[in-house]
Amino acid sequence: MPTVVAVDAMGSDRAPKPEVEGAILACRHHGVQILLVGREPEIREELKREIEKHPTVRNLPIDVIHATEVIGMSEKAATAVRSKRDSSMRVGLRLVREGRAAGFVTAGNTGAAMATAKMVLGALPGVDRPALAAVFPTSAGKAAILLDVGANVDCKAHNLEQFAVMGEIYSRSIFGTHRPRVGLLSIGEEEGKGNDLTREAYGLLRQLPLNFAGNVEGRDLYNGTVDVIVCDGFIGNVALKVSEGLVSTVRFLLKESLKSTISSQVGFLLSRRAFEDFKKRLDYAEYGGAPLLGIKGVCIVGHGSSNSNALKNAIRVAAQFAETKINDKIEKGLSSHHPRRETVPTQPLGAGSAPL
Amino acid sequence: MPTVVAVDAMGSDRAPKPEVEGAILACRHHGVQILLVGREPEIREELKREIEKHPTVRNLPIDVIHATEVIGMSEKAATAVRSKRDSSMRVGLRLVREGRAAGFVTAGNTGAAMATAKMVLGALPGVDRPALAAVFPTSAGKAAILLDVGANVDCKAHNLEQFAVMGEIYSRSIFGTHRPRVGLLSIGEEEGKGNDLTREAYGLLRQLPLNFAGNVEGRDLYNGTVDVIVCDGFIGNVALKVSEGLVSTVRFLLKESLKSTISSQVGFLLSRRAFEDFKKRLDYAEYGGAPLLGIKGVCIVGHGSSNSNALKNAIRVAAQFAETKINDKIEKGLSSHHPRRETVPTQPLGAGSAPL
Repeated sequence: MPTVVAVDAMGSDRAPKPEVEGAILACRHHGVQILLVGREPEIREELKREIEKHPTVRNLPIDVIHATEVIGMSEKAATAVRSKRDSSMRVGLRLVREGRAAGFVTAGNTGAAMATAKMVLGALPGVDRPALAAVFPTSAGKAAILLDVGANVDCKAHNLEQFAVMGEIYSRSIFGTHRPRVGLLSIGEEEGKGNDLTREAYGLLRQLPLNFAGNVEGRDLYNGTVDVIVCDGFIGNVALKVSEGLVSTVRFLLKESLKSTISSQVGFLLSRRAFEDFKKRLDYAEYGGAPLLGIKGVCIVGHGSSNSNALKNAIRVAAQFAETKINDKIEKGLSSHHPRRETVPTQPLGAGSAPL
Repeated sequence: MPTVVAVDAMGSDRAPKPEVEGAILACRHHGVQILLVGREPEIREELKREIEKHPTVRNLPIDVIHATEVIGMSEKAATAVRSKRDSSMRVGLRLVREGRAAGFVTAGNTGAAMATAKMVLGALPGVDRPALAAVFPTSAGKAAILLDVGANVDCKAHNLEQFAVMGEIYSRSIFGTHRPRVGLLSIGEEEGKGNDLTREAYGLLRQLPLNFAGNVEGRDLYNGTVDVIVCDGFIGNVALKVSEGLVSTVRFLLKESLKSTISSQVGFLLSRRAFEDFKKRLDYAEYGGAPLLGIKGVCIVGHGSSNSNALKNAIRVAAQFAETKINDKIEKGLSSHHPRRETVPTQPLGAGSAPL
């Protein structure tokens, strides 16, 4: 029985084209079954175009599930989630809740995806706040993950502790990392360094049965020193967006430098080629999008600019997430590591998260 | 009367060479007078070498002030500051307190420099926590400043308010920015976005008589949208170090890409040249180091890897800081903007700052 993945066909900036193409690629390369969720006529139109090009597409296990509404990229998540009860996100996540799909993939509005997933699927037992994990390449060649980047602001130490457990399991299950090194993002390596939150979290993380590497600094995000980095969602979100901004600036400045180095024509061509290659290396699409960890189900969020390859990889990760039973491991991990958790009053779902 | 700047001759990784050379350049180009502070024999030796090369160096207004001790880069700031009472930093900052120098420049241990400056000079009236400001280039071509990056952790909203006033005055005085745009680093642009701290700070910043641009996101650090960005020192420090780490990684990955693009030899030469140019553009040395804002005096902290040019620029900035009377403006700015400040209990100096 192939694993069934529901895909938000209306999510990305150029939807539904990359979604339909990504679904086809995933069926071919990863043996999954796909439910494309969204406005049926648009999706069928796109599928028809693909079948005209490659008639064998007709035989792939791809079905369409109609959803009348679409949540836009710039819509306020909280409002959209409440008002659009028949959005492709909501319908897709319901398929997961009902067991008709093992996981859901969207390249749409991140805030709306998180809010809808929390609402439709709920949090796993033992998880106070689900976390969005960013996956990125390091200079050591392997992928690292940073969580939370989904804006669980004003976190408590036990939130960070749960992030560590969830991130470690993800790194093991998806990247096959042996005993992933888990770091706490702080502003100095010694135990006493940091702020009130990190000092308290340090004490909790040290007691976990995982490979805790202590505090790590911002510069360690990309050097492969650790495999999993935990932090408050405000910090993680800033770190991620600073990185995005800096990459754009560096590209701009370096392109200028390259152009001036030799004759402008050659420099331009050369820099373009180098940047295409470079972009591919840095592209987090290769790593399959950002998983939302700690919900009862599987939800992978891709970038709005995702292409078919990014969607194919996100679908692969969603299937792998379900097949390797990451959620069972998280639930088990949290219950065995935290016998005391039961005495901690759990927050109502989403109560502490940022306005999305 | 030339402005006198005291320079920590023992600060940088290759001290005292860059310091002595930087002092010579600053005397020649900026008409300042220099007091080189540190181990006199070593400094004299370096000066002698310079005089042998250029006999006119003998006529420059450079004096040496002996200090027996040196604080190392990896020393714990708190311990070093307490135990080394005759360090080049302490002696140099005393020259400022006694009015013998208008400002102090060091490329040494940042934590120790901040702690010593706070201890020797004290905070300006109205300043609860002095802040270290990072200066960096943006793709818009102008410099932006981010504060605090000096690890005032667990800041209160009124700390961020003071950072805004100080940063705005610095941008006007040193970069000549007309009505600098001041942003609050957060994780969404709308007013309600962010965490408890930024939401409270937003309300305070909005009332200041300056060009408040509202919330800015991490990606706006380097795009020139705003001239001054304020945040808690934990966030600022993470943002700065993430940037450093990412630039290294990008350089590494891009170099690899460039090498593979064309014949390896040409690619290597070309990438080396491009990177030298690129490094210069990105080099914050050009902007003269990081000022410590809010102390009774002038203290500019450079990178440990500072070369003579970076030190020359830091000396120029220190002189300009004193000449444009930034501290008078800060004091006036804080007293006129904050009539209510007097009713707020001020923190004892340094009490709330991070363990250095």
